[in-house]
Amino acid sequence: MDFGEFREFGHASIEFIINYLSSIRERNVLSSVLPYDVINQLPRQIPEQPEHWRRILEDLEHIILPGLTHWQSPYFNAFYPSSTSAGSIIGELLIAGIGVLGFSWICSPACTELEVVVMDWLAKFLNLPQHFLHENEGPGGGVIQGSASEAVLVAVLAAREQAVRRLRLSQPELSESEIRGKLIAYSSDQSNSCIEKAGVLAAMPIKLLPAGEDLVLRGDALKHAIEQDVAAGLIPVICIASLGTTGTCAYDDIESLATICEQNDVWLHVDAAYAGGAFALEECSELRRGLERVDSLNFNLHKFMLVNFDCAAMWLRDANKVIDSFNVDRIYLKHKHEGQTQIPDFRHWQIPLGRRFRALKVWITFRTLGAEGLRAHIRKHIRLAEQFEDLVKADERFELIAPRALGLVCFRAKGDNEITSQLLQRLMERKKIYMVKAEHCGQLFLRFAVCGMDPKPSDIEFAWTEIESQLTSLCAEQQVNSRKAGELSELTHHLSGLHLTNETLQR
Amino acid sequence: MDFGEFREFGHASIEFIINYLSSIRERNVLSSVLPYDVINQLPRQIPEQPEHWRRILEDLEHIILPGLTHWQSPYFNAFYPSSTSAGSIIGELLIAGIGVLGFSWICSPACTELEVVVMDWLAKFLNLPQHFLHENEGPGGGVIQGSASEAVLVAVLAAREQAVRRLRLSQPELSESEIRGKLIAYSSDQSNSCIEKAGVLAAMPIKLLPAGEDLVLRGDALKHAIEQDVAAGLIPVICIASLGTTGTCAYDDIESLATICEQNDVWLHVDAAYAGGAFALEECSELRRGLERVDSLNFNLHKFMLVNFDCAAMWLRDANKVIDSFNVDRIYLKHKHEGQTQIPDFRHWQIPLGRRFRALKVWITFRTLGAEGLRAHIRKHIRLAEQFEDLVKADERFELIAPRALGLVCFRAKGDNEITSQLLQRLMERKKIYMVKAEHCGQLFLRFAVCGMDPKPSDIEFAWTEIESQLTSLCAEQQVNSRKAGELSELTHHLSGLHLTNETLQR
Repeated sequence: MDFGEFREFGHASIEFIINYLSSIRERNVLSSVLPYDVINQLPRQIPEQPEHWRRILEDLEHIILPGLTHWQSPYFNAFYPSSTSAGSIIGELLIAGIGVLGFSWICSPACTELEVVVMDWLAKFLNLPQHFLHENEGPGGGVIQGSASEAVLVAVLAAREQAVRRLRLSQPELSESEIRGKLIAYSSDQSNSCIEKAGVLAAMPIKLLPAGEDLVLRGDALKHAIEQDVAAGLIPVICIASLGTTGTCAYDDIESLATICEQNDVWLHVDAAYAGGAFALEECSELRRGLERVDSLNFNLHKFMLVNFDCAAMWLRDANKVIDSFNVDRIYLKHKHEGQTQIPDFRHWQIPLGRRFRALKVWITFRTLGAEGLRAHIRKHIRLAEQFEDLVKADERFELIAPRALGLVCFRAKGDNEITSQLLQRLMERKKIYMVKAEHCGQLFLRFAVCGMDPKPSDIEFAWTEIESQLTSLCAEQQVNSRKAGELSELTHHLSGLHLTNETLQR
Repeated sequence: MDFGEFREFGHASIEFIINYLSSIRERNVLSSVLPYDVINQLPRQIPEQPEHWRRILEDLEHIILPGLTHWQSPYFNAFYPSSTSAGSIIGELLIAGIGVLGFSWICSPACTELEVVVMDWLAKFLNLPQHFLHENEGPGGGVIQGSASEAVLVAVLAAREQAVRRLRLSQPELSESEIRGKLIAYSSDQSNSCIEKAGVLAAMPIKLLPAGEDLVLRGDALKHAIEQDVAAGLIPVICIASLGTTGTCAYDDIESLATICEQNDVWLHVDAAYAGGAFALEECSELRRGLERVDSLNFNLHKFMLVNFDCAAMWLRDANKVIDSFNVDRIYLKHKHEGQTQIPDFRHWQIPLGRRFRALKVWITFRTLGAEGLRAHIRKHIRLAEQFEDLVKADERFELIAPRALGLVCFRAKGDNEITSQLLQRLMERKKIYMVKAEHCGQLFLRFAVCGMDPKPSDIEFAWTEIESQLTSLCAEQQVNSRKAGELSELTHHLSGLHLTNETLQR
């Protein structure tokens, strides 16, 4: 493909995206395809000859788009948001066009240095403690990881290796494998699945401690567990707290957890994948309590900052603990300035060697929106969730299962789980809005998360009308059904009087 | 930013990329910035107000580009290629514009199904064994990982967990931590640093076995190590072979390694990050020998297939071994069709939960180039490396350190390491071409890798002229210096005869 064709294809793709995003409300958020529908429409091997870009865009329109779940639609209310923005989309275009990698400084100095800059921008925007800034003297700083899962795994693995080094000095009578066999980590039973998975991958059990009735994990639960485990000869390594949890966006109590961690030489990591965005708001300053006492922290930029996935910010109070744990060096990766400046070689801060120029899309997104625009976006999510919450509260057939938290409302139809379950099933079949369910203390509930690229109050109205009208229809049908069931039973009773056989009835 | 501005910014960015890539030869491949130069040109916090996209593109041009190492330049000859292409750049644009995630089928059915399709396309293109195809009955298939490092880590962790499960059954007298303490893995001392790192992360030592003089790891070395380790009570888990190695692109002997692995119930993984591209060529069919006997395999699409980083293909003979090892389930991630079809939920095949729609850029790149274009691209790299190899051979001041392998030529200036080291230093200071050094048996050598988006024979001429002319200047300067040194020593001798003090000489 020459540059002339590239230009045509590029410009046509920009138009394609504008057309897709500006008309996204016209599509059902969930697709109608069944498994294998997309596979069956595609050829079984690479075409031998090049194809014209127009055919590719046609197939994208007619085969791929109909098979998508539309994450940028305001009617996508599942999980948490994964939002993109104009600046971020163009950021990805430029990242791919420039095509550099940045695993060490020499690989592309601007790639590393821009990351240092935007991670400090973000830390200041979020009002994080000074020791997380690169520009601050000291071993702390921020890095972009691929995902929250990776950030958590990095913290877990670094904490594990640091504990092993520490124990080998303090208890030289133990072999390394004896030490490893005694390591134990903690999180809440409300935490994200990636935390449990990090424990599996790290071969270090993560105990999921019972959160309180309000779904908050507190220091006393951690203290109790550590006391038990230490008495049993185990070695506590790390506690992963959540701000907020995946199910209901509950906020673990960082202050009391930090106290226990400090007393027991336990690494405290905070998974603030979603709620971290609220650190930027003065009205949410309470959420930041205790952050000056944590060892590491992760926050997803696609959840509240309009930088598209993948882009997971992670801050470390002492990055040397990660570098020391993961560093495996080779001559072909060394460069002249390595280790002679405070500028990091980020390959030592992460699991993979290779790394994309993700700082570029962060830089572009932040500049196109400004700090003002970013704060306005987060506040909009909160306001829209308040709007939804009010609608739930005003309808006596529904109840909240937990207080609204930022852009998330957890609610259910009153009564037994079956109603909520059937309601969700209907909504999924109609495909107009997309929510997922979760469970707490035996109660099934629905999670309504404000998502999409540009949600508006009218979208909340739309979603609520869909939900409450479907509950109305569901109840009406159930009444009809139960009336029919009543009539049928009467009829059966009547017919049985006529001594008709089953076979006759079935005709 | 509204869609009107998005259109302007988008179209201007396409032009920016065309301008950058079409004039890339005019830039020095290495930048002239010193550490902190980029940082010092940028503000210390997010601008409060949104900025116009024109200012962003200006800063990109004047601050960022001058700080880059230009990976798409044909004068970038370091590491291995990380190439992009028009189709892949636009693929990234569309991925970001559509903005969906694909961690389970329901998340975006087309995202998962297109990945199933392109991974089968690629497996057929590379002539991989049938059991690696999704369309084949059985538990095998391909998945896109973020990087080769991740793919290797997935294989190492899955093999580890499978070994633990197996041993718990066969040796119930051992505790889990006793088993874990005895696990051991193998690779060659020529393998990529990410393999050693995978061992650190997995808390399972990876023994780097001595490759032969030809830098090839063979079954006998593995057999010897396994026998020793088993005798010492250790439990062999996995062997990671390389096709080819990072230093010289040597090909480990898969057949003989497979025999030893089969005899010892050891997982055999092949890291074919670079050389895997050659599986597509009939003239390289020998490289595929033994692949039908391996358990897993990884191959980077950015190295030979013009799909930009990140995109690392991985195939598993039995994906259930990974799923079984990593699966951590939650109600909010479940969906109706899960487990009821052969279509994978790829979140169980990888480390993170989230995943981008990378299959889209693969699909677009393959269609814009066709199988014919992809094969032609690989053959071009080989041809250009042959051209370079001939130039090295024709100059008696240089020698090859290993046979050319695909697009890589390893060579050095004859004589002691100091000449090669100084030559590289000069080349780095001049910034016209970028190579890295490596070492084998005490001999320092330079790696010339054909890279860049569109390298041509004239680029090879350019690089060679730069290299050989710098050796000429270096030698000339050294002769002058040694003459000067000779003169100085004569002068000193003469002056010392005059009984002058050092202080006088220094004036």
